[in-house]
Amino acid sequence: MSVLVVGSLALDDIETPAEKRTGVLGGSAVYFSAAASLLDHVRMVGVVGDDFPEHALADLEKKGVDTRGVMKRPGRTFHWSGRYHENPNDRDTLETVLGVFAEFEPQLPAEYADSEMVFLANIDPGLQLKVLDMMDSPGFVALDTMNYWIEGKPGALEKVLERVDTLLINDSEAELLSRRIGLPAAAREIRSMGPKTVVIKLGKHGALVFREDDLFYAPGLPMDDVKDPTGAGDSFAGGFVAALSLLGYKDNDNYRRAAIIGSAAASFTIQGFGVEALMAADRDDLAGRAERFVDLSRIPMPILPVK
Amino acid sequence: MSVLVVGSLALDDIETPAEKRTGVLGGSAVYFSAAASLLDHVRMVGVVGDDFPEHALADLEKKGVDTRGVMKRPGRTFHWSGRYHENPNDRDTLETVLGVFAEFEPQLPAEYADSEMVFLANIDPGLQLKVLDMMDSPGFVALDTMNYWIEGKPGALEKVLERVDTLLINDSEAELLSRRIGLPAAAREIRSMGPKTVVIKLGKHGALVFREDDLFYAPGLPMDDVKDPTGAGDSFAGGFVAALSLLGYKDNDNYRRAAIIGSAAASFTIQGFGVEALMAADRDDLAGRAERFVDLSRIPMPILPVK
Repeated sequence: MSVLVVGSLALDDIETPAEKRTGVLGGSAVYFSAAASLLDHVRMVGVVGDDFPEHALADLEKKGVDTRGVMKRPGRTFHWSGRYHENPNDRDTLETVLGVFAEFEPQLPAEYADSEMVFLANIDPGLQLKVLDMMDSPGFVALDTMNYWIEGKPGALEKVLERVDTLLINDSEAELLSRRIGLPAAAREIRSMGPKTVVIKLGKHGALVFREDDLFYAPGLPMDDVKDPTGAGDSFAGGFVAALSLLGYKDNDNYRRAAIIGSAAASFTIQGFGVEALMAADRDDLAGRAERFVDLSRIPMPILPVK
Repeated sequence: MSVLVVGSLALDDIETPAEKRTGVLGGSAVYFSAAASLLDHVRMVGVVGDDFPEHALADLEKKGVDTRGVMKRPGRTFHWSGRYHENPNDRDTLETVLGVFAEFEPQLPAEYADSEMVFLANIDPGLQLKVLDMMDSPGFVALDTMNYWIEGKPGALEKVLERVDTLLINDSEAELLSRRIGLPAAAREIRSMGPKTVVIKLGKHGALVFREDDLFYAPGLPMDDVKDPTGAGDSFAGGFVAALSLLGYKDNDNYRRAAIIGSAAASFTIQGFGVEALMAADRDDLAGRAERFVDLSRIPMPILPVK
């Protein structure tokens, strides 16, 4: 199968206490693709400016990413500049330049229309809707969103959610979108809006998967060598959707597996600047990393002896 | 076996968006005892003022808590007053009155000296040391501490840590105490200070257990009906230490079981004001709650098919 992603491609400046890098390849579609390509073919839709390095798309192509859907436009590529504190969970955004992304109108190459799996990264819900309208009839649609769209474009977001199978969203935004306190209540309310499955991302603590009566906690892998947390959420999504593509998206247990694969993919991303650590990994590395979660989560049975 | 706890007994005023309660029974030793008494006999050491209600100690006695170590002194019982926001993870402390706790000098009834298991709740590390000096030779010592003592009494804390088997501490305080970034690095450093086992509490996200080469993630149970999160950490400790008392404290797997029991005990606490929900539970309720973690954490095998 093939996984289609629509999102941003970016050139970021990233500063950590140890290092400063400029022009780092990033953006939601890039992080997603780098992770998803470890398990499946990926079709990428996005836009770059004329400053975007030729080799970057070529590197992605080598990993099995079809970049024919990436348009080149005159102007600057989307740019984010941020500084991480000594504790890598704290960061300041120094600058955001939309560049060519401001006028982004997704266009699908004809060959992409039959994609079975779709990931709509965190962009304007109006554009997310347009993408779905251009497709034949995808079997599985996942979507990411954020407070900016929840507050700014609630109508379009509501419409697109009706057509979504899985929403990936962070904990505070799940409560904002649902107007509920407590993650089970938030997930229940969001599931009534359309998505059968809600994946609530908990940052370094992992993610919760709410699907039918199934509730699964995919922990984050505790790590010391966090270099750059940028893109962890989109890498999670890439591993998650590609695993469902590989395993099938009908069975609850596959959503559990997919969340572990997502968390494993994210654990590579944060070990390097931008996508560099993720791009250096292969499927065996990902599978090996995922195995580490099995012992991390193992509860010995029985928990208590019978009285 | 018997579990000895030294800590505070308190009368708290607690305000949530839904309700305001005054004179709520609380304090670290109370939350610990209410949880631990679900599995084992508890011996309690602390101090109360002459405003402390008679029935409160009687209620604890009924649950199997020996309160002969609770001294009564003229003056006011330790008092904390706090307000929780709509999101129960945010709270403001409105007032703290030390009262008779300011002059607290732990004294052990002679019958307590042979206790096998000890929990030193979050009090002055100088007092924690004195308690250990008054005991015969406990088999297992667990300790809680906080930034106030890490920064204010580092010498005494260092000394008592050398005599501790398990440190329970929250994530930011683990990094502060160890001067390390990253929880595995923090736990390694703390283990070089004395404790064989480090339990890093992650609030509603659960706890990490670092012991020898074993690393275990005990998730928090996602819940909607959080009434009052006060005392969740001490309830965790109560379930944790009492489970080790019941199961044995030599085997790594028992620390995994104990962390699940701790997380289950904490999940009762937050469902009621003060200790009321925890005091209404029994061992079967606790065991049943613990079972819910098994499915929550279950990773289906194999995660990925062989290529």
